[in-house]
Amino acid sequence: MHRVEKEIARLINECEYDEVTRLFGMLSGGKRLRAKLILKIADKHEKAPLLGAIVELIHAASLLHDDVIDEASLRRGVPSVNATDGSKTAVMLGDILYSKAFTELVSFDKDIAKIIASSVTALSKGEMLDVKMADEFNYDEDKYLDMLYLKTATLIEAAAEASAILAGKDSVSHALYGRNLGLSFQIIDDILDITADEATLGKPAMNDYVEGKCTLPYIYLYKLLDEDDKQRLVSLHAKALDESDSAWIKQKMNEHKTIEKSFELAQKLSNEAMNAIKDDAQLIGILQTMIKRSY
Amino acid sequence: MHRVEKEIARLINECEYDEVTRLFGMLSGGKRLRAKLILKIADKHEKAPLLGAIVELIHAASLLHDDVIDEASLRRGVPSVNATDGSKTAVMLGDILYSKAFTELVSFDKDIAKIIASSVTALSKGEMLDVKMADEFNYDEDKYLDMLYLKTATLIEAAAEASAILAGKDSVSHALYGRNLGLSFQIIDDILDITADEATLGKPAMNDYVEGKCTLPYIYLYKLLDEDDKQRLVSLHAKALDESDSAWIKQKMNEHKTIEKSFELAQKLSNEAMNAIKDDAQLIGILQTMIKRSY
Repeated sequence: MHRVEKEIARLINECEYDEVTRLFGMLSGGKRLRAKLILKIADKHEKAPLLGAIVELIHAASLLHDDVIDEASLRRGVPSVNATDGSKTAVMLGDILYSKAFTELVSFDKDIAKIIASSVTALSKGEMLDVKMADEFNYDEDKYLDMLYLKTATLIEAAAEASAILAGKDSVSHALYGRNLGLSFQIIDDILDITADEATLGKPAMNDYVEGKCTLPYIYLYKLLDEDDKQRLVSLHAKALDESDSAWIKQKMNEHKTIEKSFELAQKLSNEAMNAIKDDAQLIGILQTMIKRSY
Repeated sequence: MHRVEKEIARLINECEYDEVTRLFGMLSGGKRLRAKLILKIADKHEKAPLLGAIVELIHAASLLHDDVIDEASLRRGVPSVNATDGSKTAVMLGDILYSKAFTELVSFDKDIAKIIASSVTALSKGEMLDVKMADEFNYDEDKYLDMLYLKTATLIEAAAEASAILAGKDSVSHALYGRNLGLSFQIIDDILDITADEATLGKPAMNDYVEGKCTLPYIYLYKLLDEDDKQRLVSLHAKALDESDSAWIKQKMNEHKTIEKSFELAQKLSNEAMNAIKDDAQLIGILQTMIKRSY
């Protein structure tokens, strides 16, 4: 991974603007899941670290804009750029990172460049859908999963597919792996928002629902509640929750096992991903680590 | 130009999201200067309309984000997207347009794709510089022109250079033409902010200085004022101007002919542009129409 970090530093340096270097330096790099995936799939290709760096810049740009849109004050446990330097700076820094990433992408073959670039259109659409869907209670599972795919899974899918092409491996199975890894990753993130405590999350628990985001455990719960409880659940949507309300939601989720049902879907998607790349112990390792986060 | 509009409509349609189509439909297309330039330079090339559409999407995306950053409520005389649908929507729509444009850019040769993509990094940097420079009174002409180049001229330069390559024409002279067209266009815009009335501008006059933007007429004025008047000018920077203050600034600008001096630079840059492409009557026509806006 130091090769990826070196490429990231070089690209930031090439922006030739101290303010960009300073602001980028304040971001927590995170797990670099996407770059790790690219290195594991195309480890021998000399351009794999550059592709990893490009995808991480795109991911960083999308998080900068997401935090502006969600008015998030924390990101990976540290204050977000919109919190420290204002939303405008976060928008501009995101634009610089996006365009620098796209500029570097041009040096790759057209099929690879197109896969990565079009995944960014998908993720931007996903972010817009996510915001629109938060306006009212959504109980449509398919609609929710379509949005998750666009918002979270497409860039991981693109990273896996593009690096498979770079390495001369099967792109269809790797794309499926990336897609399902992304989906199950996000479903588990959604579960943790309900089950983990504030200290672990680095943000208040059950924040998704307060922000209007109806994740799978809420969608499954809605379907299983009687009419009165359905109404109560919907009435709490997109509002600050007091302790009795959040306790009631958790109790109902326990009763109807909606966390377990959500986890089962994550596991099913993860198993499909594992089947797609069955001989690759390293890629299986990434999946297993990810799934283990939830317990 | 209908070929460009058709391509733009196709690209928006390919985003497959009604909300994007609706929001994009609300934007005023503006003069489409960049696309016109591309069509004039590479009129016979079958991909010229697509290149024009890509550059117009990039330009629209940059204006959407600029309006969020400048908190502008009007754009080309109609309410901005951030005013009608909120800043978040404007950020997301801009991201979708940027990434769709970059995706389409992949179908061009690498040199063309790189020229357009890297100009977007430059313009994003230019926007950030513009905002930072508004924090205090700037009297450095070179610093101001460097920012103008990044913010306004690079995309026009890139459009001219890329379309020259597409058409097999001289890219160096066309790049110079585009750069200087962009610079003189913006200098004249800066002049109009002072000399035109609110009805013509579609926004309050002298708005630049109120927003902290020290354009050339202010930079030249500062250099020519005595110490007391320098202090008075600086004390008015980035504040709402009452009638006596704005009258005083205009009177001093008249006295020291700083509007004329700014116009002379625009004309000099425009003449250089004309010399670069002397045999091309159509490109000369674009320059002349642009320069005439000011009187």
